[in-house]
Amino acid sequence: MIEKLIAKIEEKKAPIVVGLDPALSMVPPHILDEAVSRHGESLEAAGEALFEFNKSIVDATCDLIPAVKPQSAMYERYGLPGLMAYKKTIDYCHEKGLIVIADIKRGDIGSTSQAYADGHLGTVHIGSKEFAPFDADFATVNPYLGSDGVKPFVEVAKAHDKGLFVLTKTSNPSSGEFQDRMLAEDDKLAGMPVSGASVYAGRLSNEAEDVRKPLYEYVAQMVNIWGQESLHGDYSDIGAVVGATYPEVGLRLRKVMKKAYILVPGYGAQGGKGKDLKAFFNSDGLGAIVNSSRGIIAAWQNEKYRDTYGEKDFAEASRRAVLDMKADIASSVGL
Amino acid sequence: MIEKLIAKIEEKKAPIVVGLDPALSMVPPHILDEAVSRHGESLEAAGEALFEFNKSIVDATCDLIPAVKPQSAMYERYGLPGLMAYKKTIDYCHEKGLIVIADIKRGDIGSTSQAYADGHLGTVHIGSKEFAPFDADFATVNPYLGSDGVKPFVEVAKAHDKGLFVLTKTSNPSSGEFQDRMLAEDDKLAGMPVSGASVYAGRLSNEAEDVRKPLYEYVAQMVNIWGQESLHGDYSDIGAVVGATYPEVGLRLRKVMKKAYILVPGYGAQGGKGKDLKAFFNSDGLGAIVNSSRGIIAAWQNEKYRDTYGEKDFAEASRRAVLDMKADIASSVGL
Repeated sequence: MIEKLIAKIEEKKAPIVVGLDPALSMVPPHILDEAVSRHGESLEAAGEALFEFNKSIVDATCDLIPAVKPQSAMYERYGLPGLMAYKKTIDYCHEKGLIVIADIKRGDIGSTSQAYADGHLGTVHIGSKEFAPFDADFATVNPYLGSDGVKPFVEVAKAHDKGLFVLTKTSNPSSGEFQDRMLAEDDKLAGMPVSGASVYAGRLSNEAEDVRKPLYEYVAQMVNIWGQESLHGDYSDIGAVVGATYPEVGLRLRKVMKKAYILVPGYGAQGGKGKDLKAFFNSDGLGAIVNSSRGIIAAWQNEKYRDTYGEKDFAEASRRAVLDMKADIASSVGL
Repeated sequence: MIEKLIAKIEEKKAPIVVGLDPALSMVPPHILDEAVSRHGESLEAAGEALFEFNKSIVDATCDLIPAVKPQSAMYERYGLPGLMAYKKTIDYCHEKGLIVIADIKRGDIGSTSQAYADGHLGTVHIGSKEFAPFDADFATVNPYLGSDGVKPFVEVAKAHDKGLFVLTKTSNPSSGEFQDRMLAEDDKLAGMPVSGASVYAGRLSNEAEDVRKPLYEYVAQMVNIWGQESLHGDYSDIGAVVGATYPEVGLRLRKVMKKAYILVPGYGAQGGKGKDLKAFFNSDGLGAIVNSSRGIIAAWQNEKYRDTYGEKDFAEASRRAVLDMKADIASSVGL
């Protein structure tokens, strides 16, 4: 799957993903009013409004971008009708030729991660029939449970030609509380008090001499291991999430994970700047894809665009914001 | 909310939660056949079969137990119809007077965690109306993103009288890969390379002299901090997940998190034994609630029960398994 994403990035000349993370507060009143007129003030109205909002933005931007990243939380917030909008959004983006990165940040014990992977990336069998319930192309995965929480996703991705981005260093202000903690120098096998020692011994023993590093760097090393059998050319289907808000970390992890594509959230509304993005890319101009959510989909509310675009032109404002983001990244990264 | 859970535990004399984590392979054929006869071989049939299976087990066990823990993955596996079964299961368990712990293991950047918390524990406003989309009583939360990923859940729990269990040391074999890593002794503020330092400085400075400990113990200390404003009597609405499979860790974390209720997965099918559970309880016989999923809901397939209970009596087998679990815990923990 990663080679398909790269081909689309090259075709569109845009290492950009639009985060479809809508909130009702971003939806122009005429769209919500229309939905309420059909469904009353209800979760169904909210779900329909989110989908119609997404659809207009996708229509206005799909020729410019390779991929979208719907954030499952924004749909779960509105219960089943919200999740219906989530599924319709995935299907509509596929119709428009876009790659869909499901930002679900799931991760659980093995048999449970298997169920998430089946549902979001893979298929299930019911009697003689096979279904792909959500059918995203990539999913984000939380690594806190270790290899047996991640590997079912890796295996399902391999079987169905899909991919992952594993949370490594997230873009939020408090991501360092746990992810930046420095690990003890003598934390080799003896330092692993209960579990995980055997996995660790088997997989990372070559690195045992080089132990003092932040937790996120260990996660990055595991991303390399998890992805080593999923290579397509220079890159693996198993990538990583590293926030635009921490460019020094990006520079370091770009070197640690040579084969991992990096999904970079935090550009724009969260504070990540174009000039900081170069750190995340390889010299071939590949290796990273930058997400903007609010910066694109709520552009019509941004003072930069709101004098030019009214609420009826919200999708055109999003298109303008994509073009501006593309130019910012091209000039900063040197594409 | 924690005081309600404790009252139910005391009323039923059972610190037990039944994990409603159904797979189609556990559902007796007559239930699946009935669903397929109505909906064909479809995701709808799968969803209906999961709900009917759950309903029978809840009917057969609800007088014995205080709470259930549906695992969202098992429902997401079957897409929207699966999630419809998830929501119907929550509502049905509430009708039967059970407390519902949503095992969703969500966790994201602040604004996104807010959306998850609103949807799963809180409410949303649409025009003049307010809805509680999933309306669980507790949710499990993944701490990898740090305080700003957890606090929206804490605040929503406070506003709506709900609770959390934060993943601290999970029950799976590879949980130690990251959770057990020993942190460096000199990892005080200078050791926090980029972010999180200010949060850490403000919140944990009293503990700065005592730094060398595994990551899960830092998470446990943060659980104390996150829960300090949510106390009801001896316990906080903000609890922790610690796996039955690591009783030494349970013994340690029981002392570290004096006010946190511990949700203990991993009993039974995952290998946790009754005799190991004492570590997780306080001397008042409270402080922990033990989950069993497959051990209860798939009891009819277990060699211990399958000669006595046929596939039509699967719910009675689950009832027997709850009674056996209750006796095992009572004798081990000394309740």
